Amino acid sequence: MKKLAKRNELLGTETAYAVSAEASEYVARGIKVYPFHLGDINIITSQNIIDGCMAAIKAGKTGYCPAAGIKELREAMSWEMNKDRDTDYTWENISIQSGGKPVIGKFLLSLMEPGDEVLYPSPGYPIYESQINYFGGVIKPYRYIETDDGFKFDIDYFKSLITPKTKILIYNNYQNPMGACSSEEEMAELARLAVEHDLFVLSDEAYFDVFYEGKGKSIVDYPGMKERTVILYTFSKKFAMTGWRLGAACGPKWIIDSINKINTNDEACTTHFIQYAGVEAIRGDQSYSKELIKTLKRRLDVLCDALKDCPGIKYVKPKATFYLFVNVTEAMKKMGMTDVEVFRKDVLAKTGVSFTTRNHFGEPLPGETQKYIRFAYSGINEEEIIEGIGKFKNYIKSFY
Amino acid sequence: MKKLAKRNELLGTETAYAVSAEASEYVARGIKVYPFHLGDINIITSQNIIDGCMAAIKAGKTGYCPAAGIKELREAMSWEMNKDRDTDYTWENISIQSGGKPVIGKFLLSLMEPGDEVLYPSPGYPIYESQINYFGGVIKPYRYIETDDGFKFDIDYFKSLITPKTKILIYNNYQNPMGACSSEEEMAELARLAVEHDLFVLSDEAYFDVFYEGKGKSIVDYPGMKERTVILYTFSKKFAMTGWRLGAACGPKWIIDSINKINTNDEACTTHFIQYAGVEAIRGDQSYSKELIKTLKRRLDVLCDALKDCPGIKYVKPKATFYLFVNVTEAMKKMGMTDVEVFRKDVLAKTGVSFTTRNHFGEPLPGETQKYIRFAYSGINEEEIIEGIGKFKNYIKSFY
Repeated sequence: MKKLAKRNELLGTETAYAVSAEASEYVARGIKVYPFHLGDINIITSQNIIDGCMAAIKAGKTGYCPAAGIKELREAMSWEMNKDRDTDYTWENISIQSGGKPVIGKFLLSLMEPGDEVLYPSPGYPIYESQINYFGGVIKPYRYIETDDGFKFDIDYFKSLITPKTKILIYNNYQNPMGACSSEEEMAELARLAVEHDLFVLSDEAYFDVFYEGKGKSIVDYPGMKERTVILYTFSKKFAMTGWRLGAACGPKWIIDSINKINTNDEACTTHFIQYAGVEAIRGDQSYSKELIKTLKRRLDVLCDALKDCPGIKYVKPKATFYLFVNVTEAMKKMGMTDVEVFRKDVLAKTGVSFTTRNHFGEPLPGETQKYIRFAYSGINEEEIIEGIGKFKNYIKSFY
Repeated sequence: MKKLAKRNELLGTETAYAVSAEASEYVARGIKVYPFHLGDINIITSQNIIDGCMAAIKAGKTGYCPAAGIKELREAMSWEMNKDRDTDYTWENISIQSGGKPVIGKFLLSLMEPGDEVLYPSPGYPIYESQINYFGGVIKPYRYIETDDGFKFDIDYFKSLITPKTKILIYNNYQNPMGACSSEEEMAELARLAVEHDLFVLSDEAYFDVFYEGKGKSIVDYPGMKERTVILYTFSKKFAMTGWRLGAACGPKWIIDSINKINTNDEACTTHFIQYAGVEAIRGDQSYSKELIKTLKRRLDVLCDALKDCPGIKYVKPKATFYLFVNVTEAMKKMGMTDVEVFRKDVLAKTGVSFTTRNHFGEPLPGETQKYIRFAYSGINEEEIIEGIGKFKNYIKSFY
């Protein structure tokens, strides 16, 4: 009787939440915690966006709106996409969502048959793997190689995964947790493979605008990609709107129409007045958003400065995202540790520095030998970064 | 290449939206439309709830919150449920949702195996049928019988549908579109059958508080029901919050835990600060909500008064919901019409009175001979009700 349907055995979760819970327990016990585990942003949303929300409530936008979203926001979103990408989207290419996350499941439901193989990154955002499994797909994790210039696609391995049953590629440039940024050549090669093997592509561009040098580039810009790519867009990072739950799926009309139909079934619509806040976020003054990116950049600089001369670790400073993925293999060896979770817990207990590890982003692939931890710096201020990393460094140094 | 996954052929929609679109076209052409088709409420949300939302934004509740919802709202919700039902829910029995609708799919995903048979009402809210089909269940629509005392379960027919493969009962008391209210005997019999056949029950209580005489009663109150029932709760109707997207699933912890896990995968969380508006809605002053119900009751009285002496129609004034389900069989016969959609379109064209029909709430069952239309009075004021129904009556009378 007390039995869930079988599919639920295949449903994953974000195990990083367990780290949050653990950190909260330390805080509750009065212990100082340095929250490098959070993917949230500790900066409040810009006042002009809040005002946009309040004005919409006052204007009575408290009733239902269309399942696909209000036309004003769909139009603003198409402008936002076309501005930085080689697309010619109209409002009909946009489906408004309650955040970026819903796009993952709805894209898979629209295009993936049970038994279809789906390529996705590991380490990567754990919801990809969970939703592929849940809706009956076959998981095909691809991997990156650590180089002196950051993480690169293991393109030979990637090619070896492709079979006639491969249907979908999930691509997350700029990548959580690694902060990996594809070169133009890498992206061109991926696009070429997607076209050659007739794959649909989910381009998760959650960090497209969290970019510190130059500008983001989308895989949709490459030949043959527009007709096979759905872009996951979120207001969460760029506009510090994580808790607002606002995002969009952008792509070919026939797929967007399908996603809209799923909207009708699963949530009626995204909160009506919040969509006007989204219009203000896109159309309004961008200085707050630019300042936010600068703040994150300063934190990254401070973080890397603080890590200087820390023995047994290595990393490449990424150009995008708010994550630093640090190889701690050597330090762990020095300490006689083999399990990165043990390392994580010990650091937390001894120093209060809380972070996630590679294990929170999918199961390690066969042959993986290196150990990694992820510092997120979106939810921690510069002073705390300096203080926390100082303790982290002393902890590591004590083994040398 | 341009091909959706097969499951999408099974996904339904709300065909009533086509009526909205049609009505909007009339309005755009400058024609006066009387909107009896809307399930939305044309009354703005109470100021104390809006203030609760704004205070939460100002307090910085713009970041993520737990996937299951904030504890304050889960606690308020359990109090709200226990107040009017024979339950002893705690916050752990509550999963906050972006409206009532998400509960339908998440309940089915949690408990329904492909091939399981699901009992649900027809006519009924069309999303039940759509989501059962979409996630691989077998639809088993049950029916009501029109009596002088309103619509009653056809209990013999209901029993005849139950097989060893029947796993779930979806029950919508107080019912959209019929406004049907179960007697205590009817509810007791349904509960008895659910226990006898070991069915899980989704009790859609969206209209539980839109009640004009006495109080709503939940099927969860009957013996053996608490452990097998999930209640769909929504803030939409009672608090005029349709566009806010706030609701909850309430039930046994092991099912709620599963629904929470789906939350983590499909939407991260419900908008953070809106959940504080929900706390205010439940814990704050209830006078606005009470006034809202009175307003709806007045509209129902005015609607029934206006329909007096209209030839060829019959109905029973319901005690709950904001729908009046009218039998127009005789009038249509007089007019030589057999298709209720033709009738609907003709009335709209000739009078501007816009409503939905039985056909918008699931396919007619075999043997159905009577024709019905649904007047919703949540989105139309008293003056317009009088004027519109006057025109409707004159239209019908012109055939007599």
